[in-house]
Amino acid sequence: MTRWKLTIEYQGTDFAGWQRQKPHTPTVQQSIEQAITNFCQQAITLHVAGRTDAGVHARGQVAHFDLDYGGRPLNGHDLAKALNAHLRPQAISIIQADPVSADFHARFSTINKLYVYRIINRSPPPVYNGNFAWHFHRRLNVVSMQQAARHLLGKHDFTTFRDTDCQAKSPIKTLDRLDIQEWPYDQYGGREIIMEVEGRSFLHHQVRNMVGTLVLVGEGKWQPDDVAIALAAKDRIKGGPTAPPEGLTLQRVDYES
Amino acid sequence: MTRWKLTIEYQGTDFAGWQRQKPHTPTVQQSIEQAITNFCQQAITLHVAGRTDAGVHARGQVAHFDLDYGGRPLNGHDLAKALNAHLRPQAISIIQADPVSADFHARFSTINKLYVYRIINRSPPPVYNGNFAWHFHRRLNVVSMQQAARHLLGKHDFTTFRDTDCQAKSPIKTLDRLDIQEWPYDQYGGREIIMEVEGRSFLHHQVRNMVGTLVLVGEGKWQPDDVAIALAAKDRIKGGPTAPPEGLTLQRVDYES
Repeated sequence: MTRWKLTIEYQGTDFAGWQRQKPHTPTVQQSIEQAITNFCQQAITLHVAGRTDAGVHARGQVAHFDLDYGGRPLNGHDLAKALNAHLRPQAISIIQADPVSADFHARFSTINKLYVYRIINRSPPPVYNGNFAWHFHRRLNVVSMQQAARHLLGKHDFTTFRDTDCQAKSPIKTLDRLDIQEWPYDQYGGREIIMEVEGRSFLHHQVRNMVGTLVLVGEGKWQPDDVAIALAAKDRIKGGPTAPPEGLTLQRVDYES
Repeated sequence: MTRWKLTIEYQGTDFAGWQRQKPHTPTVQQSIEQAITNFCQQAITLHVAGRTDAGVHARGQVAHFDLDYGGRPLNGHDLAKALNAHLRPQAISIIQADPVSADFHARFSTINKLYVYRIINRSPPPVYNGNFAWHFHRRLNVVSMQQAARHLLGKHDFTTFRDTDCQAKSPIKTLDRLDIQEWPYDQYGGREIIMEVEGRSFLHHQVRNMVGTLVLVGEGKWQPDDVAIALAAKDRIKGGPTAPPEGLTLQRVDYES
């Protein structure tokens, strides 16, 4: 029996999220489990680092599964290649497959996650990279958003940014990083706003709810300090709206090496 | 009568190139002309800076057309917005619409064009940005490609890199820039190789034929100096293959300001 760690890239656009649902609902988990079964002739269950919602992308999602491949030797490069052949033409790619020790767990062994939220900030609809970003028409003030973001860093009760369906036991989380940078997107002043968010774990919709709130600040509807007030209220009603899924990418999951 | 300059972004994947063909063949020209007609109730003809082939993208294509809008004032921002509404959901976006003088010509007034050719160089199929790049499995030696590229700079007879159907009067062109850079693409050593190619004008398939040849060098099948020999032969048969269209983007067209 070998425990395999998969590192996975996917475009979430056409999937109803990571988690397997009814048989005919396309999910990333269902597609990869099917590819493994097709290749290995064995039913397996994937355990994932962090379930992503419908429409959310990944460039470094991690999942593990156990496989008894009849004693035959199997290396990671060949396994990834075979699974990618079975996954074709779906927008899912196994970047890496590594054998890991039996005590590795994709979810419980996580020490850090990096999410990237991308906004394309210009009036015309974006074509290049358009599926991986939230298209926001009105100009955002990035300096105000950066000021507001500082209030969210550290250990807090994040109830204000927690989906009402969130099943986590505690609303207390530690946000280690929330950096906001802007880059040119086109020749006419259109910009990409890239938000990098790091922490060990997050509440359901926490990143998208924080982004939706910071965008209120960027629009000038809120002042940066209003974010501190909303956080302190510990009330979802006091937070901003949920930013759309297409801007969010699970970029990287880290483990003790 | 106003002459309008449009700056255009498109994903070429689903189009049979720029140039209008038979009525039911999807082309970028046909789509934009139709959008203009739908908005202005007038048949117009677009003149383009550089026709792109099937599958080739643009982030800064330029075209012009003449419009008599019944004397009503029309500003560029509103025109672009209206055309984008008519173009939806096609992968074409009017980034900018500017009124220009009657002697402006999208093709003949060009002083410089920048093409970008993007290769994603790793074994697993790329998902992120995958539609805007050539996926090349085997590892390429970028330093060799950079050495080889130097032989192509300057004024030459580019017959070796000219499509046999090319209708240009002369095979002599001046290549002003051919820079090759590599960037990380994922966490596992996968790279993006970005080739920036500039000049006033190009022969048909010239950029893709140069890229296809440089990739032979990157693979180690050719030495860098073999590119100089191929160029001097002035014979298409001595050049490398044509790189696929999906990696090519017309990034920018420059005019006297």
